[in-house]
Amino acid sequence: MSSQRVVILGGGFAGVYTAMKLERLLRKRQDVEVVLVNRENYLVFQPMLAEVISGNIGLLDTVSPICRLAPSTRLYEREVEDVDLANQTVTLSPGFEANATVLHYDHVVVAFGNVTDFRKIPGLHDHAFPFKYLGDALRLRDHLIRVLGEAATTTDPELRKELLTFVIGGGGFSGVEVCAELNDFVRRAGKKYFHINPNDIRTVLVHSEDRILEREMPERLGRYAQELLRKRGVEFIFNLRLETGTPKCAVLHDGQRIPTRTLISSVPSSPNPIVAGLDVPQERGRIKADSKLQIEGFENAWSLGDCAAVPNPSGEGVCPPTAQFAIRQATTCAHNIVAAIDGQKQKNFRFKELGKMASLGHRRAIAQLFGWIHLGGFLAWLFWRAAYWAKLPGIDRKIKVGVSWMLDLVCGPEIVQTKVDVKPAMSESHFEPGEIVLHKADRADRLFIILNGKAELSYGDENGEAAKSVELTAGDVFGVAEILEKTSVQANVRCIEPLTVVTYNKSELEPLLALPAVRTCFEQLR
Amino acid sequence: MSSQRVVILGGGFAGVYTAMKLERLLRKRQDVEVVLVNRENYLVFQPMLAEVISGNIGLLDTVSPICRLAPSTRLYEREVEDVDLANQTVTLSPGFEANATVLHYDHVVVAFGNVTDFRKIPGLHDHAFPFKYLGDALRLRDHLIRVLGEAATTTDPELRKELLTFVIGGGGFSGVEVCAELNDFVRRAGKKYFHINPNDIRTVLVHSEDRILEREMPERLGRYAQELLRKRGVEFIFNLRLETGTPKCAVLHDGQRIPTRTLISSVPSSPNPIVAGLDVPQERGRIKADSKLQIEGFENAWSLGDCAAVPNPSGEGVCPPTAQFAIRQATTCAHNIVAAIDGQKQKNFRFKELGKMASLGHRRAIAQLFGWIHLGGFLAWLFWRAAYWAKLPGIDRKIKVGVSWMLDLVCGPEIVQTKVDVKPAMSESHFEPGEIVLHKADRADRLFIILNGKAELSYGDENGEAAKSVELTAGDVFGVAEILEKTSVQANVRCIEPLTVVTYNKSELEPLLALPAVRTCFEQLR
Repeated sequence: MSSQRVVILGGGFAGVYTAMKLERLLRKRQDVEVVLVNRENYLVFQPMLAEVISGNIGLLDTVSPICRLAPSTRLYEREVEDVDLANQTVTLSPGFEANATVLHYDHVVVAFGNVTDFRKIPGLHDHAFPFKYLGDALRLRDHLIRVLGEAATTTDPELRKELLTFVIGGGGFSGVEVCAELNDFVRRAGKKYFHINPNDIRTVLVHSEDRILEREMPERLGRYAQELLRKRGVEFIFNLRLETGTPKCAVLHDGQRIPTRTLISSVPSSPNPIVAGLDVPQERGRIKADSKLQIEGFENAWSLGDCAAVPNPSGEGVCPPTAQFAIRQATTCAHNIVAAIDGQKQKNFRFKELGKMASLGHRRAIAQLFGWIHLGGFLAWLFWRAAYWAKLPGIDRKIKVGVSWMLDLVCGPEIVQTKVDVKPAMSESHFEPGEIVLHKADRADRLFIILNGKAELSYGDENGEAAKSVELTAGDVFGVAEILEKTSVQANVRCIEPLTVVTYNKSELEPLLALPAVRTCFEQLR
Repeated sequence: MSSQRVVILGGGFAGVYTAMKLERLLRKRQDVEVVLVNRENYLVFQPMLAEVISGNIGLLDTVSPICRLAPSTRLYEREVEDVDLANQTVTLSPGFEANATVLHYDHVVVAFGNVTDFRKIPGLHDHAFPFKYLGDALRLRDHLIRVLGEAATTTDPELRKELLTFVIGGGGFSGVEVCAELNDFVRRAGKKYFHINPNDIRTVLVHSEDRILEREMPERLGRYAQELLRKRGVEFIFNLRLETGTPKCAVLHDGQRIPTRTLISSVPSSPNPIVAGLDVPQERGRIKADSKLQIEGFENAWSLGDCAAVPNPSGEGVCPPTAQFAIRQATTCAHNIVAAIDGQKQKNFRFKELGKMASLGHRRAIAQLFGWIHLGGFLAWLFWRAAYWAKLPGIDRKIKVGVSWMLDLVCGPEIVQTKVDVKPAMSESHFEPGEIVLHKADRADRLFIILNGKAELSYGDENGEAAKSVELTAGDVFGVAEILEKTSVQANVRCIEPLTVVTYNKSELEPLLALPAVRTCFEQLR
């Protein structure tokens, strides 16, 4: 029996709900196989992800395994490497095999969402925490606990100040929710450390407009949120963008630097690179789909969710990138795919937005319902919880989240690190003029390659006398001699023009340096 | 005011309980500072760690933050790099500073415990999962979910078999508990995957004796546990040790190979390398401490817990490495330190073991109490839970674990990955004779350096005709040409003598290879 294969790319609300609706429509039919490809095996319930920081809910409670939501869908937990619309194939990164998997499709659904992509801004890419997946939330949480622990033990007052300053870029939904939860968490957890003075903690939100949530929410609610956060100790810097970051500070658009070891950027969400590479009509990085959710010019290619520009049924522009729209689009898309397979009539996408909400942490939220009801405070927070609780997929998840919320009323914050993170062998770092890249007499454990920018290496003694200095530019390498000779750092290196370097850890380079030919080569590099 | 500093090294039961007892004895006294150094900021409640695999309890429920247990102790979350007993200093790895921290002490407590150390067995070090910290448990959990997901999608029957085979080495407490929980989890979770046949799942426990728990438990209880696990689908291989591992199989002492992608070793726990390097009397890798817990020959150095050989108060040999003994030793140790500071009389360690227990997963356990009560089954399991629940530190933790256990009765297993793990840029791999290290036509994404052993590189075509082969040994490099020229793998590489290689990922090497001098060097390496 020849069967048809529907391949869904992306496991956000758009993709997973398309699979769920398809399963429902195709029940008992063996002639259509549904395949879903996602880099995670779970659907992230984004509105609650910020609560992972404070541990208000269990670490796994914000996500739902896709294979339980859509049990007869074949799930590939892989990266999509290529989509070939002409030949109707998608290429997936290798799993345990050595080679890529190529899947033929009869219908393809492109639902990648967008990605947090700082690649265009070197400093943010290297030093800002993204906040999109469960892994991001856990990494940030671990980092917060680590800086609190270090702040409690360090004897250096400058370092303590940097460690206790937290900077968030972006005052949209995501930035505000992360800021609220982070601020609650560090202030509550800070109290558990005998050696931390809670008044030393600073949380700073940087936003390019003159108030937060200016596009997302009516002014009154935005102002309410702002005042609430301010009372809880959040500082606001308005009318300035977060420009870049370095290992030790956040740099604003006007050049101002805020010394910090924790920088979170919620701003630039870019189109998925695979979407950008597709030869289909696009609108500001989103795939142009019609009201049937078909990609313009293709009979068997569909697109929905955040990565698609679907005409808004209200008549104004395109649908906003929210879960509400994605879920309703999924219903239409699944119906239309089955209709296409069976030669039936297709439907147009219709939906009117119900409302918008944002949690402000610790029992406060704001909500705009049906366009005209404005709520702020405890009631809105109860409504927020009730609404999202109702939307949580699966009864198990509902029970667990409900219980976690109740426990949170009696138990303190969790300040345990999962510490699953590995220090990467190679990383990029960004520095701004005047910053010290490498200190004389420090432990020598890294090798640096300059990708771009300029630095000055100086051998001078501490009194500044008889200083010998060398200018370093792209392609120059430093830190080699110290690694080869196992000494401490022999010179100061200072950034003189915005600098991007690649660093390798000594321990990971050692097997390479043990090869005589490579060692000789590196000896000549310095 | 001159104050004294007590530095405790290690945050297991021994170290943390010493800090807790010291805080209690020193209440209101400002003249003694207590410092604790540990690589994690939490105490692992080891007996429950195995439950993290199945998600019976919340991911953080097995651990307790040290700064809540011992709130006025200064906690350094660092590695100990050196202990200098002559100069009374300890050196800690750098935190956010560039250099190591050196602490002077008046009293030092060495309570490192032991470490899971496979370094002497290359294959196990590279390919077996350790199981000691929370991070280990989470990594194993993620891996299990990943292999189930891949098994559900792969079309290669050999690979599916490897993915669904799980091998555990060691039939002591830890091996048996991990085996029981893992077996429960993969069989329960496997049912959630539409495309996995639960009968294809194999769990194999390899043990060097002729029955499990032969040293830890009376024969009757050991046999009971064994039969229970056998009924739940565990296979046993007795009288054979796990010899080594490769990326695709477990190798037993008699040369037998079990194809698997999941190898867990609970066997070799070695002394901490810092302990091994200390110039103090030792007994089988444990520091010789007297019944006052003082290290022989030192007035201000103490040792207890798993890393110390303390005379057993029963008169027979030394204390076993269990939490029961560590906790009671901590009370004596804290008392004696305060007595030493105040010039009071010190006490001898006295304690009689209460009993032993092991959980067998899914509502069964075995227990030996006061030496003569033997329990096996549901009652022992209830007792196990009650006993450990009572021992859980802190009321918050007690509530959360209690609730998790209740929820587990109604909710299914959690099959969500935290996926915080990063693929390391550099790793070591071990291969056994006959295994293929690199397949012709595979994706070329790694560079290999041979550390020891022998391999054969052959360019021959697929019919075996006109095959040209080269022997590779220690210091030889392969995979370079393919990376430089961006082609797929051009030759087969087969292991001919047990082989250990270092592999570097292409993507992490690229910035280095972009340097002309390094590129030239690598071009000559191939």
